[in-house]
Amino acid sequence: MIIALDALGGDRAPRESIAGAVQAAREFGLEIALVGPRVLIEDELARYDPQPSGLHVVEASQAIGMGESPAQAVRQKRDAAINVAMRLMKDGGASAVVSAGNTGAVVASALLNLGRLPGIERPAIGAIFPSTDRGVLILDVGANSVCKPSYMVQFGYMGSAYMERIFGLQRPRVGLLNIGEEEGKGNDLAQEVYEKLKKTPLNFVGNVEGKDITAGAADVVVTDGFTGNVLVKASEALLEFAFGRVRRVVESKIQYRLAGLVLRDALREMRRRLEYAEYGGVPLLGVNGVVIVAHGRADAVAFKNALRAARETASSGLLAALTGIPKK
Amino acid sequence: MIIALDALGGDRAPRESIAGAVQAAREFGLEIALVGPRVLIEDELARYDPQPSGLHVVEASQAIGMGESPAQAVRQKRDAAINVAMRLMKDGGASAVVSAGNTGAVVASALLNLGRLPGIERPAIGAIFPSTDRGVLILDVGANSVCKPSYMVQFGYMGSAYMERIFGLQRPRVGLLNIGEEEGKGNDLAQEVYEKLKKTPLNFVGNVEGKDITAGAADVVVTDGFTGNVLVKASEALLEFAFGRVRRVVESKIQYRLAGLVLRDALREMRRRLEYAEYGGVPLLGVNGVVIVAHGRADAVAFKNALRAARETASSGLLAALTGIPKK
Repeated sequence: MIIALDALGGDRAPRESIAGAVQAAREFGLEIALVGPRVLIEDELARYDPQPSGLHVVEASQAIGMGESPAQAVRQKRDAAINVAMRLMKDGGASAVVSAGNTGAVVASALLNLGRLPGIERPAIGAIFPSTDRGVLILDVGANSVCKPSYMVQFGYMGSAYMERIFGLQRPRVGLLNIGEEEGKGNDLAQEVYEKLKKTPLNFVGNVEGKDITAGAADVVVTDGFTGNVLVKASEALLEFAFGRVRRVVESKIQYRLAGLVLRDALREMRRRLEYAEYGGVPLLGVNGVVIVAHGRADAVAFKNALRAARETASSGLLAALTGIPKK
Repeated sequence: MIIALDALGGDRAPRESIAGAVQAAREFGLEIALVGPRVLIEDELARYDPQPSGLHVVEASQAIGMGESPAQAVRQKRDAAINVAMRLMKDGGASAVVSAGNTGAVVASALLNLGRLPGIERPAIGAIFPSTDRGVLILDVGANSVCKPSYMVQFGYMGSAYMERIFGLQRPRVGLLNIGEEEGKGNDLAQEVYEKLKKTPLNFVGNVEGKDITAGAADVVVTDGFTGNVLVKASEALLEFAFGRVRRVVESKIQYRLAGLVLRDALREMRRRLEYAEYGGVPLLGVNGVVIVAHGRADAVAFKNALRAARETASSGLLAALTGIPKK
């Protein structure tokens, strides 16, 4: 199985993307197609001696910048790395695509080159939110700033299939993000989606409030891409902020610093588990292929984990499961 | 100055509400009208010997439960404590109202008994979110599940006046919560509000993403009550969750426990500053009176701080500043 990596995608690419690929090849024996300008990639690869086997370079001459209009750039630059990677997968040369590039560009390129799965009107990006047990999949967190009720019902199906296949859950609990627990709460969109989700064969557990997510009230939390995006970005920043405050306290006195040294590794490990990098990117669901979106600030470890997640997702049968979603 | 306290509001009332009032009277010399069933309140007060001066009991025979429809209950139970407290303020017998009861009931009672300020179509609840410097006021966080653009422009004015009067800022920076920084991002509502805020005399700094809140990109963050409610509830739970994980790590080994003992007080103090209880409740803005909504789980310290916040707000001139908002 080959995973295609958008080698230039991400704030810290190609240094960190290539480093992550080298680690993934070494540690997990992954085969990876490094897609991007050959010269740049080979320059980076030259840092590693010996180079692990399993790394292939696939030339792509164009790059999409963070400032460009993603949808336009993807259409105009047919040889952008993200387009080349998607085509490689479509043609059978790769089983999954990983990119830490502009999320809008990844979504647009996936739609352009792969298309949507039957029954899916809009793809969704899922993110794993920390919770008391195994984590909660929230979707959509940014592929759609405006959602119709039917899209969100499809998010419920996709999220359920994801948690079944990737986390091994049976009949995952699907909740609707809302501002109260009782039926009839929330804005018009939430109320309509509630009515529709109730009628599906999904294991719908009703409304889930913001405070219920970490409490593990559901395995899948359905929301529109506006609310989901605000929530996930703010939460990530808040965790960083809170741990920054912990660090500041620890560094404020010599006796705190000594105590901090004792705790450092254990806290770092705990924090890593809480954060997204270790989850290795988030899935773009609903397109006809396996696409993993890595964090824009991904470092080598995050790329390595995203590549591993891509392999797991590709071999999980998720794509086949996602084709069984009833058309509305 | 007398502050009216809804003595039965909150999960832990009247034990904690009365304890908070006793502390506030002792520590800050506050005069407080304890509104609720006289027998219950006097039973609680009997625990304290000597009783501080400045506590008055105002009889209110009815209570609104968390399960009742707030708008209906407020209309039907004219002698509910929250209604009695609001009327006391309206009649000049109190300068502010504090309640940890059902938020919907507090909003409905304020609208019924006090009415809206001129130029304000809908009141908003503001919450202070932690940030790099002094904290950010986010509004609305739950008074309105559906918002029109004009409401949100008014939230901008109210938030700006609040940060000026309560935090002493000059020309507070007002941002719009959105899913991208550039103009034109977001759903229809966000786009319309952007256009409108741009044309106000407010110090509008444009879109603010979820990740920018803790970074202190604005002093006031305007959002609809759906997004704001999800955000604030999820964030509060996430912080609790993260600190719970820290505690779990510290308790997992004897040497960690010893290091934890050294750090405990400093970390607890830092955490308290991050959390809402110490901010002492959040303001309900846009009604014709000073109303502070305390957390449903408020303990004595939270009640004490909410009472202090009520006094500060009442003496800040905020209400007068809020009457100067231009009618749309």
